[in-house]
Amino acid sequence: MSLLSSSFCGLCVYPQERRRAFEANLEKTGLELETEDKSDSKDQKTYFLKIHAPRDVLATYADVLKIKVPFKKSDIPQSQDVALEWFTQPFRLPGNIMHPEPDYFTYHFDKTKTDFFLIGDKDTFFPPSTRNRICRYWKKGRNAEERYNLYKHWARFLCFYKEQPLNLIKKYYGEKIGIYFAWLGFYTEMLFLAAVVGLICFIYGVLSYDDNITSKEICDPKIGGSIMMCPLCDKNCTFWRLDSTCLSSWQSHLFDNEATVFFAMFMGIWVTLFLEFWKRRQARLEYEWDLVDFEEEQQELQTRPEFEIKCTNRRLNKITQVLFKLLNRCARYCLSGATVTFWISLILACITGVIAYRLAVYASFASIIGNHGGESGIHKNKTLLVGGLITPQLATSVTASCINFVIIMILNFFYEKVAIWITDMEIPKTHLEYENRLITKMFMFQFVNYYSSCFYVAFFKGKFVGYPGNYTYMFGKWKKFRNEECDPGGCLIELTTQLLIVMAGKQLWGNIQEALLPLMRNWWSSRKGRHNPENHYSRWEQDHVLQNFSQLGLFYEYLEMVIQFGFITLFVASFPLAPLLALFNNILEIRVDAWKFTTQFRRPVASKARNIGAWQEILNSVAILSVVTNAFIMAFTSDMIPRMVYLYAYSNSTSMKGYINSSLSEYRIPIRPQNMTEDNWFRHFNTTCRYRDYRHPPGHENEYTHTMQFWHILAAKMAFIIIMEHVVFVVKFFIAWMIPDVPSDVKARIKRERYLIQEHLHNYEVEK
Amino acid sequence: MSLLSSSFCGLCVYPQERRRAFEANLEKTGLELETEDKSDSKDQKTYFLKIHAPRDVLATYADVLKIKVPFKKSDIPQSQDVALEWFTQPFRLPGNIMHPEPDYFTYHFDKTKTDFFLIGDKDTFFPPSTRNRICRYWKKGRNAEERYNLYKHWARFLCFYKEQPLNLIKKYYGEKIGIYFAWLGFYTEMLFLAAVVGLICFIYGVLSYDDNITSKEICDPKIGGSIMMCPLCDKNCTFWRLDSTCLSSWQSHLFDNEATVFFAMFMGIWVTLFLEFWKRRQARLEYEWDLVDFEEEQQELQTRPEFEIKCTNRRLNKITQVLFKLLNRCARYCLSGATVTFWISLILACITGVIAYRLAVYASFASIIGNHGGESGIHKNKTLLVGGLITPQLATSVTASCINFVIIMILNFFYEKVAIWITDMEIPKTHLEYENRLITKMFMFQFVNYYSSCFYVAFFKGKFVGYPGNYTYMFGKWKKFRNEECDPGGCLIELTTQLLIVMAGKQLWGNIQEALLPLMRNWWSSRKGRHNPENHYSRWEQDHVLQNFSQLGLFYEYLEMVIQFGFITLFVASFPLAPLLALFNNILEIRVDAWKFTTQFRRPVASKARNIGAWQEILNSVAILSVVTNAFIMAFTSDMIPRMVYLYAYSNSTSMKGYINSSLSEYRIPIRPQNMTEDNWFRHFNTTCRYRDYRHPPGHENEYTHTMQFWHILAAKMAFIIIMEHVVFVVKFFIAWMIPDVPSDVKARIKRERYLIQEHLHNYEVEK
Repeated sequence: MSLLSSSFCGLCVYPQERRRAFEANLEKTGLELETEDKSDSKDQKTYFLKIHAPRDVLATYADVLKIKVPFKKSDIPQSQDVALEWFTQPFRLPGNIMHPEPDYFTYHFDKTKTDFFLIGDKDTFFPPSTRNRICRYWKKGRNAEERYNLYKHWARFLCFYKEQPLNLIKKYYGEKIGIYFAWLGFYTEMLFLAAVVGLICFIYGVLSYDDNITSKEICDPKIGGSIMMCPLCDKNCTFWRLDSTCLSSWQSHLFDNEATVFFAMFMGIWVTLFLEFWKRRQARLEYEWDLVDFEEEQQELQTRPEFEIKCTNRRLNKITQVLFKLLNRCARYCLSGATVTFWISLILACITGVIAYRLAVYASFASIIGNHGGESGIHKNKTLLVGGLITPQLATSVTASCINFVIIMILNFFYEKVAIWITDMEIPKTHLEYENRLITKMFMFQFVNYYSSCFYVAFFKGKFVGYPGNYTYMFGKWKKFRNEECDPGGCLIELTTQLLIVMAGKQLWGNIQEALLPLMRNWWSSRKGRHNPENHYSRWEQDHVLQNFSQLGLFYEYLEMVIQFGFITLFVASFPLAPLLALFNNILEIRVDAWKFTTQFRRPVASKARNIGAWQEILNSVAILSVVTNAFIMAFTSDMIPRMVYLYAYSNSTSMKGYINSSLSEYRIPIRPQNMTEDNWFRHFNTTCRYRDYRHPPGHENEYTHTMQFWHILAAKMAFIIIMEHVVFVVKFFIAWMIPDVPSDVKARIKRERYLIQEHLHNYEVEK
Repeated sequence: MSLLSSSFCGLCVYPQERRRAFEANLEKTGLELETEDKSDSKDQKTYFLKIHAPRDVLATYADVLKIKVPFKKSDIPQSQDVALEWFTQPFRLPGNIMHPEPDYFTYHFDKTKTDFFLIGDKDTFFPPSTRNRICRYWKKGRNAEERYNLYKHWARFLCFYKEQPLNLIKKYYGEKIGIYFAWLGFYTEMLFLAAVVGLICFIYGVLSYDDNITSKEICDPKIGGSIMMCPLCDKNCTFWRLDSTCLSSWQSHLFDNEATVFFAMFMGIWVTLFLEFWKRRQARLEYEWDLVDFEEEQQELQTRPEFEIKCTNRRLNKITQVLFKLLNRCARYCLSGATVTFWISLILACITGVIAYRLAVYASFASIIGNHGGESGIHKNKTLLVGGLITPQLATSVTASCINFVIIMILNFFYEKVAIWITDMEIPKTHLEYENRLITKMFMFQFVNYYSSCFYVAFFKGKFVGYPGNYTYMFGKWKKFRNEECDPGGCLIELTTQLLIVMAGKQLWGNIQEALLPLMRNWWSSRKGRHNPENHYSRWEQDHVLQNFSQLGLFYEYLEMVIQFGFITLFVASFPLAPLLALFNNILEIRVDAWKFTTQFRRPVASKARNIGAWQEILNSVAILSVVTNAFIMAFTSDMIPRMVYLYAYSNSTSMKGYINSSLSEYRIPIRPQNMTEDNWFRHFNTTCRYRDYRHPPGHENEYTHTMQFWHILAAKMAFIIIMEHVVFVVKFFIAWMIPDVPSDVKARIKRERYLIQEHLHNYEVEK
């Protein structure tokens, strides 16, 4: 058993003696070792030690480990959709690529009953991931054909519309990588649906462009042009006319219309469908790839070699009789907890910094862009310029988003190293534990890192502004930073901008990094080594030159996708085109990953996995959170609810006419603003400016307190949140309850297989 | 294999020939049959066929069915809390009762390796539930001692404070019944916590009795006494003074205070803790009772005999190759769906009927109770009487609740039969499927049946009243039924009354039924049969006289408890003493059930189960729903939010002074009410009456429309719902995430066992 609980990496360089002992141990268990002379290798320094596991050894451990092997060819007919065949034909791959192996019924291997099992070619009886489970190290030259098939039918970008040869991927790379590509493919398929609906919603926005009375009123010189708005910042800003925001109000309408409400609810349901159908797909794969009874615990039992090395201060646990050290471990946990907290605080500090940047810079932008008209003719000129292509708002939010993005990337880069370092330090016992700890740490961090700026824009910006004469300031005393107001077009359009920049930037950067980096590295290492023609090298040396696929490679792929999933679900109410963007990215991503796997990396150690592990939980949480965020975005960030309340409760004509006027409150200007000449001031003396809020006008008995309309709208907003959340969650749970996790035909097949096993075993026993 | 997929009930009366064939089949598989002559039996008519399964047969099927048997005594030490031993001693049972068997490591039985397993007494090597799994029928006289131990240490009421001998229960009755009692015991333990906190909240209500300014104001003759309220019904009701509701406002305070908010949130968390810790307890039992690898599918495979009999119109399914008929089945589903819908509509109709009764009867009660003072001196007299012990409100709600309860019970009685009938009609294939279908049907029905009246009182009563001069009526044209207002003490106290009557009534009735019915039945059947002294009968005949424990017996026990769980969670905000009530009931319930099982029923066929099955899902759903209902009760049924809004936003002195006045709106009485003499009327002419709502007074420009305070309170109510739901759910999910489903020591033990199995097997193979 020592073979199984220790680990061995055949190519490591151990001190001479320890290596001898190690090799002797290997040989004792029946493995055959073959050492290539170091003079045969390219750099004349490396020994390649080839380890062969004879069939007997494999069989013994297959028995002990209860590995499942085929005993009967499946007699369950494959269901074929003949009707749609002509339609799906272009997306299909040839049959021999899709199903490289026939379908078998399998059962736990038993050495005493070898004739019970179907043993054809004795050498390939155990598939690679099984061999890897048995001896954790296996490399073979003759699978070059499979690799070529994968390259030809899967890794080329022109195949982007084709299905993926999942069985071949699984056969060559093992179940874990197979599951990843199955998940990625399924996610992309489902994204197609979301992207189409999102596109329709966007098109609805474009088509209903002309019916938008609110924007028309803003642009109308008689209505919007006659409304004087209060300055947006304290020092350098002046009064401005509402019609200067005409353009951005039109833009805003594209994303802030009735279709968005529908889309937000649709996405709540879509997410559920995605997760439920994935469970079914996963169950089907589990059955087809024979993982039904595979116990993750087997893998959990495998102790990480790092654990055994680093756990020096050992102590016997009375229950499990394994070694660990308690007190030291506690300290390590505390340290790692503190590190994570520190880094998350660091992000929050950075976000706060960016916000301060926004506040500080807005005034300067306002003075640069808005002020070059000079002091004379102040109103006509300035308001026109503010309405031009580059408004101070736009300039501020675009530059802030970009800075934000750069900070996110830098923090990410460093945190990755830190996260791995502190996870190593915790010395998790098994690989599964290691991965789960790292997932928790990285996801928490990246969640805060990527989304917090969006959360700020969606839920805090423009919500705590105060009102003229009583503005709220960010750092109490330091009166310079007046809290930002939203873009005059509405808060939603700002969220859209922020989301677009962070999401598109991340995807672009990710693809560059994924495709270019391995290419460069390989070019570099091959430039160093390959002075001789290629055929001078043995197969294993050629492979050795390629990049090593790190154990965490798949982890980063998942992380990237899950963060993207967050973008397209959490803030989808502000940007219905996000799924489309993600769809394009993923179609590219699949092929880039495939290309990377087939050409740029060494063949990774095949390992088994029956599902996507901890990511499933995270996806579920994101799905639930997304319903909440979208409800809040619709209620508090978008202008839907105030408009609806006006339409149904306050307008006389049940049309939106007059909404603009009702949504602005009045403020009487008490003293001359600093940047206004006395002349100008006296012309406007005793006039009022308007601001976006529902407060009593000056002169009213409750001057500047909230009006009834405000409370009415607030009640409506919260009613909307309550109704939307409850409806979506009820539908969600109902759908989840209605859709069985395992497809009925798979369930039937599993049952049939179990039944057949019992029957066959019984007959076998009786006949013997 | 025919033995396993068919079923056999040894005591059924088959036609002669079929029985012969059946018996021949049994003998062919190696079972030994022993028929008692019919002349030996009491009624001289019944054959008792005793079936013996020899060890060989058991061993063969144990091998095929992969049944787990011990191979090594557990060397994992039992953890003992020595520190608390003196404290927990009174609750403990003797060790030999609690642990009738030592702890073993187990492994799937393998006939070829018999010497690998620990086989002591060859006869008792397989425990009863395993034997039952193998041959589904097993009865043994010599377990009388175990039964007596159970009776002595478990079934007597005086043991109510002791722990339950779960291992003995499991050993004697099988895992399924064992799990039920484990669950019931655990639920009762957890109820203790909830009951204590609930009691504390109630005591807080009692202690803060005197600080209740609102009630003081109501009772104050200068404030409450001077407020003339509008009549509560159209015809027979008169004006009344507010101070007449003095008593009920004090009562209401007991349940409607700040502690209730806390308790509602606490119960949201408690429910999560209960479910999470139950999962852990279940995992521990699963390990201790060796169910870890037990596959429910084995049981699912067993086709119900009824299915095989009734499925006449057979057709081969190409995947599973089992028989079923499709079209007919579809019709059956539709019919059963329609039946369930019909019955649920029937309940709703009954509820509506009861509501109509409330509306109709309220007026009569008002005239009977309120009017005997005569027309003269009308105000002093009446208001006093209304404030007496029996108010029309109280009389109405108590009688309505009682009628409601009787209707619930009658509907239940009939629906039970209908549910079983339609489930039989659907011909579910396996026992598990049968039970799950029945659970869905029964729970849906009982949910509506028991809770709908509470839902009505909590969320509809008093919410759609309208206002004087513009009341809302229940059936539009038929103007007699004006929608009810709440009790003047608040809506919450009505919910409390309703809950108390339905819940306490149900529990009382349930206990009477459970304890008395079996007693009566047994008395009846023994009176018929037992003319001879007892010792004339063989053991199996004595047992045969006892009641048969129907297969659905456990189902009804669970259903009762789950409905109770619903009462103490869904509406707990209105009645913090509900958990205490449930606690008393359950302490009694455990012992009544135990007594029933040990003395009144035949020993049931032991069957395995690794968890509480579909009930877990239902409990989860109820737990989630309860957070929502409690949030809504706090917001809309209780008076907390209006009081808080008044306190923090409208009162001048930040005390509750003046709340009563601000919570009542004014209405100017336009015409003389019918039941007032002209004299009286003119005395009050042009006066106003008050009603509970926030509307502008007469004479205001928006006469009788909602005031700003109304919208303010509405916003606050919804904000409360949003905050409470989100906080409780976040804490819930966090707790569920923090508490691992399997205790770490159990996980370690399972791992250790797996490891030991591999090691032992390996050594066994090597040494062989």
